[in-house]
Amino acid sequence: MQFPSGAEMEGPVKVTIFGPGNVGMVLAYTLMLRGAAREIVLVGANRAKAEGEAMDLMHAQAFLQVPVTVRAGDLEDCAGSEVVAMCASVPTPEGLTSRNSLAEGNAALMRDLLPRIAAAAPDAKLVMVSNPVDVLTWQALELTGFPKERVMGTGTLVDSIRFREMLSAMIGIHPDDLRAYILGEHGEHQFPAMSVAQAGGEKIDDTPERRALCDKAAHAGIEVFRKKRNTCYAIGQAAAYIIESILLNERRTVPLSVKIDGFLGVDGVCLSLPVVVGSRGIERILHPDLNAMEAEQFRTAARAVRQIIEEVC
Amino acid sequence: MQFPSGAEMEGPVKVTIFGPGNVGMVLAYTLMLRGAAREIVLVGANRAKAEGEAMDLMHAQAFLQVPVTVRAGDLEDCAGSEVVAMCASVPTPEGLTSRNSLAEGNAALMRDLLPRIAAAAPDAKLVMVSNPVDVLTWQALELTGFPKERVMGTGTLVDSIRFREMLSAMIGIHPDDLRAYILGEHGEHQFPAMSVAQAGGEKIDDTPERRALCDKAAHAGIEVFRKKRNTCYAIGQAAAYIIESILLNERRTVPLSVKIDGFLGVDGVCLSLPVVVGSRGIERILHPDLNAMEAEQFRTAARAVRQIIEEVC
Amino acid sequence: MQFPSGAEMEGPVKVTIFGPGNVGMVLAYTLMLRGAAREIVLVGANRAKAEGEAMDLMHAQAFLQVPVTVRAGDLEDCAGSEVVAMCASVPTPEGLTSRNSLAEGNAALMRDLLPRIAAAAPDAKLVMVSNPVDVLTWQALELTGFPKERVMGTGTLVDSIRFREMLSAMIGIHPDDLRAYILGEHGEHQFPAMSVAQAGGEKIDDTPERRALCDKAAHAGIEVFRKKRNTCYAIGQAAAYIIESILLNERRTVPLSVKIDGFLGVDGVCLSLPVVVGSRGIERILHPDLNAMEAEQFRTAARAVRQIIEEVC
Amino acid sequence: MQFPSGAEMEGPVKVTIFGPGNVGMVLAYTLMLRGAAREIVLVGANRAKAEGEAMDLMHAQAFLQVPVTVRAGDLEDCAGSEVVAMCASVPTPEGLTSRNSLAEGNAALMRDLLPRIAAAAPDAKLVMVSNPVDVLTWQALELTGFPKERVMGTGTLVDSIRFREMLSAMIGIHPDDLRAYILGEHGEHQFPAMSVAQAGGEKIDDTPERRALCDKAAHAGIEVFRKKRNTCYAIGQAAAYIIESILLNERRTVPLSVKIDGFLGVDGVCLSLPVVVGSRGIERILHPDLNAMEAEQFRTAARAVRQIIEEVC
Repeated sequence: MQFPSGAEMEGPVKVTIFGPGNVGMVLAYTLMLRGAAREIVLVGANRAKAEGEAMDLMHAQAFLQVPVTVRAGDLEDCAGSEVVAMCASVPTPEGLTSRNSLAEGNAALMRDLLPRIAAAAPDAKLVMVSNPVDVLTWQALELTGFPKERVMGTGTLVDSIRFREMLSAMIGIHPDDLRAYILGEHGEHQFPAMSVAQAGGEKIDDTPERRALCDKAAHAGIEVFRKKRNTCYAIGQAAAYIIESILLNERRTVPLSVKIDGFLGVDGVCLSLPVVVGSRGIERILHPDLNAMEAEQFRTAARAVRQIIEEVC
Repeated sequence: MQFPSGAEMEGPVKVTIFGPGNVGMVLAYTLMLRGAAREIVLVGANRAKAEGEAMDLMHAQAFLQVPVTVRAGDLEDCAGSEVVAMCASVPTPEGLTSRNSLAEGNAALMRDLLPRIAAAAPDAKLVMVSNPVDVLTWQALELTGFPKERVMGTGTLVDSIRFREMLSAMIGIHPDDLRAYILGEHGEHQFPAMSVAQAGGEKIDDTPERRALCDKAAHAGIEVFRKKRNTCYAIGQAAAYIIESILLNERRTVPLSVKIDGFLGVDGVCLSLPVVVGSRGIERILHPDLNAMEAEQFRTAARAVRQIIEEVC
Repeated sequence: MQFPSGAEMEGPVKVTIFGPGNVGMVLAYTLMLRGAAREIVLVGANRAKAEGEAMDLMHAQAFLQVPVTVRAGDLEDCAGSEVVAMCASVPTPEGLTSRNSLAEGNAALMRDLLPRIAAAAPDAKLVMVSNPVDVLTWQALELTGFPKERVMGTGTLVDSIRFREMLSAMIGIHPDDLRAYILGEHGEHQFPAMSVAQAGGEKIDDTPERRALCDKAAHAGIEVFRKKRNTCYAIGQAAAYIIESILLNERRTVPLSVKIDGFLGVDGVCLSLPVVVGSRGIERILHPDLNAMEAEQFRTAARAVRQIIEEVC
Repeated sequence: MQFPSGAEMEGPVKVTIFGPGNVGMVLAYTLMLRGAAREIVLVGANRAKAEGEAMDLMHAQAFLQVPVTVRAGDLEDCAGSEVVAMCASVPTPEGLTSRNSLAEGNAALMRDLLPRIAAAAPDAKLVMVSNPVDVLTWQALELTGFPKERVMGTGTLVDSIRFREMLSAMIGIHPDDLRAYILGEHGEHQFPAMSVAQAGGEKIDDTPERRALCDKAAHAGIEVFRKKRNTCYAIGQAAAYIIESILLNERRTVPLSVKIDGFLGVDGVCLSLPVVVGSRGIERILHPDLNAMEAEQFRTAARAVRQIIEEVC
C-alpha cells in the first residue's frame, strides 16, 4: 500500500457536500458516523437549512467514535477540501421517467457552481452524484479543467449493488462476493457485463432469470422514486464508499462514471467502467474483456450519453 | 453481565418502526448500519412510502458488515418484535413553539395504534419517540397495559447530549465523558442536574456560562426545527442507542422518560430520570441526589406534564 | 438473505475454542472485539492458563461495544456451541519445514478430543485450524460423524490472503478486490487458480512476477514461524472471518478445506476450494473452471494429502 | 472540538511500539484493526521477531477496513511518530509479587533507550506501559526532557477498568457507565476514589462488598500473571484507547500516570489522576474532591513511588 504525501494531509481531512438534500444528507450522516473525514461542510442554496442540518448532526457527537466537525458554509468554504461531492439538483419532476429530464436544469446549475468550486478548491477530487450523472461528469471535466483522474461520477455503482442484492437473494451468496458489474450509462443504456461475472472464482451463468433481475435493477431507482419521491440510502452509501476509498487511499474497485479514452473505440463521453479509487482519485481504469454484445451495448450507451451532452453542455 | 433467556432470542432479532418519516428513517438506517437488529419492519400510513424506504435500504446491503432484512409491513407485522419504536406523528405545524401543540393529535393517533400494537406484540419493549414524549409515554402505559419496565420515552436523552456537545466545545472534554444530565420534561420544564454533574470524577461547576448553554440546549430542538423543518439525526441516534442497549443487554445508563413512582413525592406521570436499559427494558431507575432547586424543578415539570395528560389522555 | 431458524438461535450465541495458545487467543480476542459471539468458552489442557486468558479478556469489557462473556471451561462446556473452533496442537518442533510433521501427534490428539466434542455438541459447526489442516479436517469428519457441511478447515484461506496482500503491494489494488484464489493443500501442494483470477472484472494476467509471489506466499507461513516461532494474526483473523460468516449467516465466499466429492475426479480427501459459508456451515462448494495445469495440481494435492491421511488417520 | 494543526498531521499517522512482546503485540494488533494509526513500526531487541510479527499483521490486511502499514524498524525509525509506546521490559521473574521487582532492570533499559528515542522523535507523545509504570514515567520525563504533557503512563487505567468490570457484574450496569476511579500507584498503593464514584448521576455507595472488589481488582493483574505468565489484553486495550484519544484528539477522560504538580501537597512523582487526553497529550489534569482518607492514600502512594524513584532512577 502507498499513502498520500504529507501535502495532501495537512489539517483535518475535509469534505464539502453541495446540496444538503436527501442524498447529500445521507452522505453527510454516513461520513460522520465512520469518521474518515474530520470536517464536513454543507453548502446549499438555503443557508438556514444547511445550518439546521449541521446543528442536528453536531448534536449527535456524543454517540460517535471519532469527533467530526460539521458546519454550513458558503461555496468558497470548500477551499482545502480533499473531496467535493456534488449532490445539488433542480427539483425532480413528479412523473419522472428518465434522469435525462433533469439534464437542462442541472447543466445550468453546474455552469453556475462548478467554475467557482474549481477556483476555490483547485486540488480537490470531485465526485458527481447529481443526474444525469454521466452527462454532468463530462460537463464537470470541461467546466473545472481538472485532470480526468480527479473527476468521477457515481455512475452504475448503485445499479451494480442493486443488481447484486437481488442476485444475492436468488442464489444465496453475499452481494459483495457477487462480482457482477453493471456498466455503461446510469440510465436506460446500462447493461450487465455477465460474460465476466464471477463469484468465488466460478462463472455466474447468464440465465434468463438473472437477465430479468438486471432489468429490475435498472428500473429500481425509478421505482423507489415513485414510491417515496426520492432515493437516498443506496446512493448515499455508494458516494460515501467512493469518498472513503479516496480519503483512506483504499484502492477499492468499483464501477464509476469516468472519461472514456478509446476503450472499444469510444471517446468524448463519460460512462461507467470498473476503476480503482485511491488518494489521487481514479488510480486506474480497468478493461474487462467484454463479449461482442456487451461491447455493442457500451457503444450504444456512449452514443446516447453523447447526444445529451451535445444538447445541454 | 447477564443475558436474555433463550425465549427472548428466538428467530432473527426484530425491531418494528412505526412512522417511517425523517426520525423513523434515520433510526432505521442507523440500526441497519450497526446490525444489532437483523430484521427491521417499517409500518406507516402510506404503504408505498414504507415500501420505497425499505427497498432503498435493502439496496445498500452490499456495503454492510451484517446482513439485515428491511421490509414494509402492516401493523400486525410487528408481532415477534423485541422492540417497537413509535415515531408516528401528526404533521408538525409550521410555527411550532412547543411540542405540546402536537398533544391532541398524537394522543388520538396513539389511541388508534397502541392497543392494536399491544395485542400483536404483547412481549415487546416499547420505545416512544413521538411528541410530547412524556405525555405519550404515560398514555402508552395506559393503552398497552404493559408493565412499566417495558415502556419508555426518549425524553431528555437528546437534550442531554445537545447540552454535552455544547459544553464539550466550551471546556474541551469529550461529550460522553461529561456526565451531566438534563432531567424533567422533554420541553420547557427541563433542567440540568448540575449539582451531580461530573467529568473524570471532578465536579462540573455550575457557572452562569454553563447555565446559558443549558437554555440554549433546551431550545436547540426548536431552533433546528425552524431551520430545517424537522430534527432527525440526534434523536434518531438517541433512539438507536436505547434500542441497541435493549437488544444487546448493554445496561447503559441514559436519561429516559419513565413512569415515576414516588421519587421526590412525584407520581402519576412520566418524566426523565437516569435509568439502566437492558434486555428487560428499564432495568433500574437511578435517583441522583438533587439539590432543593432541582427537586422543585422536577416537581414543577411533573405538574406541567400531568396537566397535559389530563387534558388529552 | 435467509436467516437461521429460531431453534438455532436460542440463548446467547456461543463459540468454544479448543487450544487457547497463540492462534486460539487471537481468535478469541478478535471474536470478542466484534461481538458476533456473545459467549466464548476457552478449553485447554492447562486449565489455569485458560482461566487467566479468560480473565484478561473480561478485564477489557469496558472498552467493548457489545458485552461478551469469556470463560474457561471443560471439554463438555462446548455443549450448545454454534461453532467449535479447534486450535489445539502438539508443540511445533523448532526446525519446522512442513506442517505434516505435526500429523502424527495431532491425529492422536484429535482421536482423544473430537469424539467427545461430537458427543457434547452434536449440532455444532466444526472449524479446524490445527495442522496439517486438510488431514485433520478429513479425520474430523470420520471421528465426529458430522455431515460434511458442518466440518471445515481454514485451509488455503490464509495462503490466499497472503498472496493477495503481496499482489496488492505490487499492482495497487485493495487485497479484497483481488479475487485470486490459492487452492489445493494448505502446504506444499497449493497452487494459484490464476486462470480465473480477476480484479474489477478484468483478468489478472499470469506473469512470472506474480507466480513468484505465489511461491513467496506459499512459504510465508513457514517464514513467519521461523522469525517469531508461531503465526497467529493472519490465521486468527481468517478463522474469525469464517466463524462470523456462520454466526451472522453472511454467506461469504472463501477458499476452505472441505470434503471433495468428485470435483475433477477427486474424492476421499479434504482440500481447499472456494465455498459459501453460512448458518448451516458450508452452504455450497463452488467449482472454478480450472485449466489443465491447475486441475493436475489439484489432483496432485489430493494424492499428497490422501497419503498422509492413510498414514496417520 | 478543536483539531491538531496541519503540522502535526503531515504524512500517514505513525505510531512506534517498543517491545513487540505480549503487550506490545496486542497493542499493535488492536491499533491496526481500528485504523487510527496508518503506519505502525515495531522495534525490539530481536529484529527477526519484530519482522515476523510485522509480516503476520500485514498478512491480515485483506480483512481490514482501513489499510495500515506495519513494519519492523530500528530505534531511529521512530522518527516522525505521533506517539511512541514503550512496552519493552526485562523478563518478568516467575514468582512475581510486585511490579517493583522490575524497577532496576527496566530503569537501566530506559536509560539506554529513552534518550535516543527523544533525539529521534523529539515531538512525539510518549506512552509508558512498562512497569513499574509510575517510576518509569517519572524517569522518562527526566531522560527525555519532554514537557510534562507529552509523557504519560497507563497507570491505574487498567486497574480502574478491572474494578468496573467486577462492579458491573455485581450491580448490573455497563462498566463504562460506572464512573469509579482507581487512583494512586499502579501497584500496592492504589485506592478507589469511592467518595466521588457515580453511575448515572447517582452516587455509588461505598459498601464492604465493593471495597472487597477493589482489593480483588488491585491483585487481578498479578493473579492473571500467575495463571498465564503475562497480562496483555486489558493493558493492550488500555494503551490503544489512550493512543487513539491522542491521534483523534478525542479528549477522553481516563486515569493515567502523570507528573503531579502540587495536588494535595504532592510533587516530585508520577501517579494516576483522571486526565483529559487529546492531540497535545495530557490536555488537563482533573482534581476530584477526595475525602480525607483518600487524600492520605494518595500521599502514601506518592511516598512509596518516590522511594523507588530514588533507588533506581
